[in-house]
Amino acid sequence: MTEPTHIDDSHDPALQSWVASANAADTDFPLQNLPFGRFRRSGSSDPWRIGVAIGEQVLDLKLALTQCPWSREVEPLLQPLARGELHALMSQGATARGAVRAALSRALREGSEQAPFLKLCLVPRADIELSLPCRIGEYTDFYTGIHHATAVGKLFRPDNPLLPNYKWVPIGYHGRVSSIGVSGQRVRRPRGQLMPPDAKVPVFDAAKRLDYELELGVLVGAGNADGKPMTMAQAEDDWFGLVLLNDWSARDIQAWEYQPLGPFLAKNFGTTISPWLVMQEALAPFRKPFAHPADDPQPLPYLDSPANRERGAIDILLEVWLHTDAMRAKALPPHRLSQSNFGDAYWTVAQLLAHHTCNGCNLGPGDLLGSGTQSGPQAGQGGSLLELSQGGKQPIALPNGETRTFLADGDTVTLRAYCERAGARRIGFGECAGTVLPALPF
Amino acid sequence: MTEPTHIDDSHDPALQSWVASANAADTDFPLQNLPFGRFRRSGSSDPWRIGVAIGEQVLDLKLALTQCPWSREVEPLLQPLARGELHALMSQGATARGAVRAALSRALREGSEQAPFLKLCLVPRADIELSLPCRIGEYTDFYTGIHHATAVGKLFRPDNPLLPNYKWVPIGYHGRVSSIGVSGQRVRRPRGQLMPPDAKVPVFDAAKRLDYELELGVLVGAGNADGKPMTMAQAEDDWFGLVLLNDWSARDIQAWEYQPLGPFLAKNFGTTISPWLVMQEALAPFRKPFAHPADDPQPLPYLDSPANRERGAIDILLEVWLHTDAMRAKALPPHRLSQSNFGDAYWTVAQLLAHHTCNGCNLGPGDLLGSGTQSGPQAGQGGSLLELSQGGKQPIALPNGETRTFLADGDTVTLRAYCERAGARRIGFGECAGTVLPALPF
Repeated sequence: MTEPTHIDDSHDPALQSWVASANAADTDFPLQNLPFGRFRRSGSSDPWRIGVAIGEQVLDLKLALTQCPWSREVEPLLQPLARGELHALMSQGATARGAVRAALSRALREGSEQAPFLKLCLVPRADIELSLPCRIGEYTDFYTGIHHATAVGKLFRPDNPLLPNYKWVPIGYHGRVSSIGVSGQRVRRPRGQLMPPDAKVPVFDAAKRLDYELELGVLVGAGNADGKPMTMAQAEDDWFGLVLLNDWSARDIQAWEYQPLGPFLAKNFGTTISPWLVMQEALAPFRKPFAHPADDPQPLPYLDSPANRERGAIDILLEVWLHTDAMRAKALPPHRLSQSNFGDAYWTVAQLLAHHTCNGCNLGPGDLLGSGTQSGPQAGQGGSLLELSQGGKQPIALPNGETRTFLADGDTVTLRAYCERAGARRIGFGECAGTVLPALPF
Repeated sequence: MTEPTHIDDSHDPALQSWVASANAADTDFPLQNLPFGRFRRSGSSDPWRIGVAIGEQVLDLKLALTQCPWSREVEPLLQPLARGELHALMSQGATARGAVRAALSRALREGSEQAPFLKLCLVPRADIELSLPCRIGEYTDFYTGIHHATAVGKLFRPDNPLLPNYKWVPIGYHGRVSSIGVSGQRVRRPRGQLMPPDAKVPVFDAAKRLDYELELGVLVGAGNADGKPMTMAQAEDDWFGLVLLNDWSARDIQAWEYQPLGPFLAKNFGTTISPWLVMQEALAPFRKPFAHPADDPQPLPYLDSPANRERGAIDILLEVWLHTDAMRAKALPPHRLSQSNFGDAYWTVAQLLAHHTCNGCNLGPGDLLGSGTQSGPQAGQGGSLLELSQGGKQPIALPNGETRTFLADGDTVTLRAYCERAGARRIGFGECAGTVLPALPF
């Protein structure tokens, strides 16, 4: 293999794959995407392996390393992947990440000399189960959705919905890793302390106001040494990729517990992410200029850079779908609750890393940063039921005659995301689904 | 070795060790303590080993396993310790923990048949360096110091210092593991967004109001399965032990960032814990009855048990010492800033575990739960400078003529703790020291 790896044409929309299903117009996983996931044969107890989604197939990287030669530059980068470990590549930074992507793109495109060998390394996606794409280090959840922050703030402070720090500080807080699961997770309705309306004392009961939050999750790359903040330029290079993230939330637990130290048990009983980790490089065609509105405070210098202004935002369409037990019983399809766009976020991914590390806090490979709920500016674009039902006051009518203010037992919430624009191949994120189990009996 | 391991006389104050320094009246580490730590020879790059502090010595458990026989019950429990890994023992629960403690107590007491062999396994504590006592899983910080919560609340809300949830909910929030270090940590003064007094816009600058917080840290034992809350009885058995914990805090960063999701960059630039993990069993003689004041709300049933009422609290005296550059320059000793007692905490250790898991959130071996700042009821017993200086308004006079409202560069803060009562052997926690480095230059 002698192609120079620094020529990366992996986004060329004209490129086709020798994996036929990757060339379908509506696939989430064309040759231009190439996300990583950890998989094994459904129902087996095999060790988890790393694969790359391509159309309806997965390229098994363990087999791929043994079945055909790779360049001297790329082979050592693929070896830890073949052992099922993504952290080693994450910790190598942008050049290594780009080299692996370019090599995979060449190997999977039509006319590749590797095709005859790699055909032996494909597993149908229908035959696999997926785990978390990597070991999550630590988890921080941000709050970059200004339309969400405004809508939620309005419920509490109609005249002053946004707190004074919002337009200066990328607000964030630490979350819990142990309860993060992958798409397909079954999340038990939590019990907790609730203060019923008009009550004087709290009760311990199952949450009544269970909700989802539509977010993206950023997987950190190499990170930074303890005490050494990342510059914006370092932050822009460092982040590895994105997944979908559902930050399940119990609004009634949250309302009673969150003062003064923030959400805790209202959020840490379950968080679901999608299994396919879409690399930063796959999103390059969908980057766009970033700016705060002219009347707003402009980012402080540690959160500002020319590259961030030029291409800091990412145009990603986000959707929430609901499938209820009653819909399933009548074989009705899921219902789309809302759409929004990550391009409306008030802070960029690089700003989250630069802010998180500006005090010297050290990030590491596989750390997960939630974007916060992504709601659009219009009514009906809320990224949570709290917003869509206006704090539970306006039930949402579903097409089968059901209504929802908050989630019912059996409800399946599915997040989806995709990028599309003229002149680029559409790419998708797959899905992030989770189902509500009833609370434990008392 | 055939002694029945269920007879645990390890607290008998009359017991003496064949390690002479363990019998000194003022040692933190008599035979009745036996805390675990991870150590290596100072300046070496040897792998970290697990040892047990005994007087001025450490018993090297790797050597101890090879040098003499152990009972059939205890030997498999010691094997992972000999490999430098505490998690395996943590995950075994209370019976295993007690069996190991009883075996170590018998081995180290006067007249032990193992003494001639174990003498070869001692390393002077003066010759070692220590790491974190175990790999920290995740970190949650609670807020059980009601005198701290009241004092801090008064600074913001003179008429209503405690929020309505405080006496019902063991308030907590998630923290950051990557910046947790062991005693001796050098913590760089963080930079961050600050809102100067009377300013209209924030600045990015070095924190001016750097503070410590005097806490204990609980190390979780086996933990609980996802979705399965711990009962109080399970929580009482499960926790493995305690360390000292300094939750370094930048009050000016905190004031500007913390609404509405809680502290973030104000806290995650550094947290220091002590290296010697004092097991729950060592604290047994210092347990005491626990009750909320009669006029306060009583704990909800999931936070209540007979054992918790009978012996939920722990009488541990806590101290903060300050050593400044100016004191060091004149060879003056450190100055004690305050004393308080963990027996004044508003919630017990078991209540923290039961609350954390009541929504199904899963804890695991090595998870760390901070107690929150432990301040006493009297003026001058504040567990932070924020309290001792009344929000920075009343400088504290030091004996050498210096004053402090918040920490200066070069200041070393040392936390100490010990338990003593008539009829029990005094035990100590060693020390938890950390030194402030100047902020990075701009």
